[in-house]
Amino acid sequence: MADINSLLAAHPVDHKLSKHDAVQDLPTWISLVTNLNALAAKTVVYKVKGASIKGDHYAAVVALISSDASSSVVAKAAGAKEGRVIGEDVATKLFNTARKDVTPFHFASVTDKSALTVIVDSRLLEIADDKSIAFRGCADDQSVLIAASQLKAFLEKAGVSFSIVEFGLVGEKPAAAAKPVKGEASKKAEKKPAADSDTKEVLIGLTAKRDEDFSAWYQQVLTRTEMMDYYDISGCYIIRPWAYKIWKSIQRFFGDAIEESGVEDCYFPMFVSEKSLNREKDHIEGFSPEVAWVTKAGQSDLAEPIAVRPTSETVMYPYYASWIRSHRDLPLRLNQWCNVVRWEFKHPQPFLRTREFLWQEGHTAFATKEEADAEVLEILDLYRRVYEELLAVPVVPGKKSEKEKFAGGLYTTTVEGFIPTTGRAIQGGTSHCLGQNFSKMFDILIENEAKERVNVWQNSWGLTTRTIGVMVMVHGDDKGLVLPPRVASIQAVVIPVGITAKTTPEERKNLEEKANELAKTLNKSGIRAKADSRDNYTPGWKYNHWELKGVPVRLELGPKDIANNSTRAVIRHDGSSRNISLDTITSDLATLFTDIQAAMFAKAKKQRDAQTVQLESWDGFVDALNKKCLVLAPWCERVECEDQVKDNSARSENPDEEFDEKAPSMGAKTLCIPFVQPKNGVKPGVTKCFACEEKAKSYTLWGRSY
Amino acid sequence: MADINSLLAAHPVDHKLSKHDAVQDLPTWISLVTNLNALAAKTVVYKVKGASIKGDHYAAVVALISSDASSSVVAKAAGAKEGRVIGEDVATKLFNTARKDVTPFHFASVTDKSALTVIVDSRLLEIADDKSIAFRGCADDQSVLIAASQLKAFLEKAGVSFSIVEFGLVGEKPAAAAKPVKGEASKKAEKKPAADSDTKEVLIGLTAKRDEDFSAWYQQVLTRTEMMDYYDISGCYIIRPWAYKIWKSIQRFFGDAIEESGVEDCYFPMFVSEKSLNREKDHIEGFSPEVAWVTKAGQSDLAEPIAVRPTSETVMYPYYASWIRSHRDLPLRLNQWCNVVRWEFKHPQPFLRTREFLWQEGHTAFATKEEADAEVLEILDLYRRVYEELLAVPVVPGKKSEKEKFAGGLYTTTVEGFIPTTGRAIQGGTSHCLGQNFSKMFDILIENEAKERVNVWQNSWGLTTRTIGVMVMVHGDDKGLVLPPRVASIQAVVIPVGITAKTTPEERKNLEEKANELAKTLNKSGIRAKADSRDNYTPGWKYNHWELKGVPVRLELGPKDIANNSTRAVIRHDGSSRNISLDTITSDLATLFTDIQAAMFAKAKKQRDAQTVQLESWDGFVDALNKKCLVLAPWCERVECEDQVKDNSARSENPDEEFDEKAPSMGAKTLCIPFVQPKNGVKPGVTKCFACEEKAKSYTLWGRSY
Repeated sequence: MADINSLLAAHPVDHKLSKHDAVQDLPTWISLVTNLNALAAKTVVYKVKGASIKGDHYAAVVALISSDASSSVVAKAAGAKEGRVIGEDVATKLFNTARKDVTPFHFASVTDKSALTVIVDSRLLEIADDKSIAFRGCADDQSVLIAASQLKAFLEKAGVSFSIVEFGLVGEKPAAAAKPVKGEASKKAEKKPAADSDTKEVLIGLTAKRDEDFSAWYQQVLTRTEMMDYYDISGCYIIRPWAYKIWKSIQRFFGDAIEESGVEDCYFPMFVSEKSLNREKDHIEGFSPEVAWVTKAGQSDLAEPIAVRPTSETVMYPYYASWIRSHRDLPLRLNQWCNVVRWEFKHPQPFLRTREFLWQEGHTAFATKEEADAEVLEILDLYRRVYEELLAVPVVPGKKSEKEKFAGGLYTTTVEGFIPTTGRAIQGGTSHCLGQNFSKMFDILIENEAKERVNVWQNSWGLTTRTIGVMVMVHGDDKGLVLPPRVASIQAVVIPVGITAKTTPEERKNLEEKANELAKTLNKSGIRAKADSRDNYTPGWKYNHWELKGVPVRLELGPKDIANNSTRAVIRHDGSSRNISLDTITSDLATLFTDIQAAMFAKAKKQRDAQTVQLESWDGFVDALNKKCLVLAPWCERVECEDQVKDNSARSENPDEEFDEKAPSMGAKTLCIPFVQPKNGVKPGVTKCFACEEKAKSYTLWGRSY
Repeated sequence: MADINSLLAAHPVDHKLSKHDAVQDLPTWISLVTNLNALAAKTVVYKVKGASIKGDHYAAVVALISSDASSSVVAKAAGAKEGRVIGEDVATKLFNTARKDVTPFHFASVTDKSALTVIVDSRLLEIADDKSIAFRGCADDQSVLIAASQLKAFLEKAGVSFSIVEFGLVGEKPAAAAKPVKGEASKKAEKKPAADSDTKEVLIGLTAKRDEDFSAWYQQVLTRTEMMDYYDISGCYIIRPWAYKIWKSIQRFFGDAIEESGVEDCYFPMFVSEKSLNREKDHIEGFSPEVAWVTKAGQSDLAEPIAVRPTSETVMYPYYASWIRSHRDLPLRLNQWCNVVRWEFKHPQPFLRTREFLWQEGHTAFATKEEADAEVLEILDLYRRVYEELLAVPVVPGKKSEKEKFAGGLYTTTVEGFIPTTGRAIQGGTSHCLGQNFSKMFDILIENEAKERVNVWQNSWGLTTRTIGVMVMVHGDDKGLVLPPRVASIQAVVIPVGITAKTTPEERKNLEEKANELAKTLNKSGIRAKADSRDNYTPGWKYNHWELKGVPVRLELGPKDIANNSTRAVIRHDGSSRNISLDTITSDLATLFTDIQAAMFAKAKKQRDAQTVQLESWDGFVDALNKKCLVLAPWCERVECEDQVKDNSARSENPDEEFDEKAPSMGAKTLCIPFVQPKNGVKPGVTKCFACEEKAKSYTLWGRSY
């Protein structure tokens, strides 16, 4: 039998083992621990089943006695279809004790922790430290009394990860249960049907682990932070305010920069006639399988089907031809922020690959190639800055290979991001020089100063809401989202703390006012701060809530802090904390945000660099990919060679395995030819291609890619 | 025979009648006037034909000899299909002189000026006043020499309105012609085919008059100011930067205001499933004939057709149901800026009624009707401010009748604009209280503080790019657009003037620098100013150009102004001018903009009020409508009565005449029940409905409407 004392000794935390009369029945035990100034809690373990669950899996819930942790509620919280309380055999196998004697401390003894989802009642964690939680202590005559913070600490020390769930009250509708209103609550609640109680659970923590099930983790981060919601049309998603505000930050930064540079915003229709769409052949070949067609209006069939723009080259350029007459009409530099549709049939991923997405698309025309070339790089550098300076995500700027360039363009530049958890690269944004190809198709001509009729040089460039997904993937952790301060819509949340049973209503009110004042002071100096003075949540609940939401800094403000004229700042991305004087809070926070921004970038860059390998030959190439690395290698820049590398680096020989041409690429492809080449770069005529032994032209970055 | 001296005497301007040897052939005459320091000009009159031209119509062009004013060019400039030089009979009939002797001064003698479109060569008007223009003066031995400014003054005095056209050079491509490059120009130009010369004319003035052909005028203002361009899909238009910037101003003002009020931006998909769309019956009935359906993606038919949103109630509210659980989740106030599609089959009008348009749509949910009611008015007042404070367009805020309210809503409030030229009202923006209708359809329920499950109260509100069209229609004049300073993307344009033949290159450069400096100084103080220092256009050309574009203030800066440390400000909306000291220019301009904004609003309001009639009975109702007035009258508020009024006030009894239910309404409809009622309002039980003799409930505003 597992000894609770030895379990507690292995992960020491403050607790009390209380000896008392032996009690068998629950009501008696509850009144007993209530007299000990403790709240009775329960530990229930279910075996859960569901489509996505392979093998035996269990959900163990730690909850207040009064919380409704019935099988359906817990199963849902664990992402399962159904749950059933474990039998004695399983209790013995898992915890080496009888079913009724299982405590949270027994979770530490489970050997295969991946088979166990631990769920902790949010209301239990909200209990202030001046009150204890009581668990039956492996014997009828003893109980374990422990503060919520210490229980949490125990689980953390023991390596037991858990998610936090807001349960309803037993026999009551959960939404109401979270905030019983005065004395009326319990009476009225009894009238409500208990059947409601499992319909509207809100998970406030994550159950999936980033390094175990990345896809589930990503989905949970997005939905539970309220960044995104799923929609009833596949591949389309709802961008909720918490994510949309990041897009607004990007819009503001990039929009101001291009306006300053002379680009003007406009809006072209989203519909394209079939004729216009098909004007440029190479270009349309890249898009036509994904074009959505409107064929009906009301009850009428349209005479001609009309396409929804997948991009706007063929929408805009016929008009450029009519607007541009002489070199004096140049440069023409237009941009639009809009939605586009690419009806891809495989693997939609929120933000990363969606059927409708938001972006900006710039379309410009110049008299000379030199001007076009310069703009391509000007814009690419702004994209780099969006990633690196706003989102704290490192990217590699470079040029795409012939195979990977924009269909119909002359050359494509890109900023390539990297998702360390999956080891896959992701195209961050592209700036294309279209050359004169489109201007020839669409007859965009000027008479230059030498009186010759010549085609203009064109660029197009785009950045999408994918940026948000990349940021989430790079910085998020098992607690949820981590926002870089520059794009966080709330940079600091002020939480009043230290309210105990002895706190008078006046003291409480005063504390809330101080918190609000602090937030206002910060707002005035341009810091996006908010006080969370809600009285229906405990500080602990709020900590979890704002950590999940990724707010960069939490400011804890209690009576002692106020007495010391300071506040405790806890930093989301590394969990560190420090006291900050209220006298210098605005300047200190500004500095702190700069530091956090830099540290987040440095951390992500270090991780990316650690997963980037430089190779001179094929040896180790596939191995590096399999180890989730990018590979920098000298390359001949031939399309056939790229095809060959892709084939030879495919992960599996199994022909049945699904093969997705565009995204979860099984074989490696070129990401870009980085503008910054290794110090000892390619020696012309000497260095050989890592893959085919032809002469190498450049070091090229390869990887599996989204 | 028309006597040129008597014509000039009737409208006196500076000119010189030069007597010389009799010359018959043109080349001789040209060299003769060249020796008189004058530039030879020609007057050619064409009879023009085209689909839109009824009866005899003529285009008379005044141009430099070197300008290509051939028939096709002139016909195109006059909006006609073809042109043919008039015969002697017509010359006699119109001008009472021989064809070869027609001068611009003869235009003054034409009795039916509506049959004559006068077009003046832009290069001719650009000629500085130290040089003259020469016309053959009704006899072989005399010529009229006149400065460009005086010719213009003559035409204006004589009531001859004209448009300004940029012609190419004879035998040369026009785009190049405007700026001959050194000595090389004429040589190379000869190699170009003359056939090109009529393909790319740019009209820089308007040919249509606002009060004569409003629809053509509106179209010309929009296209020639480069606010908008037509698109190859009917009902879809390109919003170009000059208009899009106004939309950005509106977005900034309204977006900041609602953010301040607690509304958050988000983005929902533009596609709706058929099931969701059809969930609310009354609502969808209002939209279904106009819904565009996507039925194909690439080559594949979709399993279910998917609608493009005509509005987002049915897109959003299923998700509101899942997000809103308790009164603590309220208010939920979301907004999105997006495109929507309503595939109307009648009368598309740029900005006013388009198949795709841009708007913001707010969708909010509250626990109580009181909160919803308050927000409806809060938003409506912001719409009023967009019109009145940003666009200087007066509107009437009020409530819609039952017949005119939003389908499926509880009540609709509106701000109603007015287009004086057509006497028609236009709905400016609507803020709806949806009541609980949608929340019942979509099961959006909360448990309130009293523990009852109740439906939430909802609002929706929208403002579209229609705003831009209304602004153009209300303020524009025959010179073009007139922009209110608050939304003008250029508030003041600085134009260097006073450059003569004697000006040295250094003096010229100095002047341009001063102009640039002035613009920069203004920019620094937050004024959107720009210097137009292009050396290939004369000040006169620039005046016309920026007047057409509607820039509120032109600042003329010449050597004398600089010596006096001042600049001459010419105000677009009333043509007035004043000197402003350069010492106080920034504060003076700021004040001036405020004054202009107020004056434009006051003028538009005065006009609107002058075309609003208060009636107590049916007498005079149709007459007032026919006189382009709105009517304020006591009304019973019954749907049947509104239907009856509409029938009885229809403009024509002719059943063949096209009847458009939604827009150019032939019968009058209610616009709104104004919140501000007349001083001696309806006396309950006493005042009778103006139309049906039932008891009146309110004074209601009626009108023909867009």
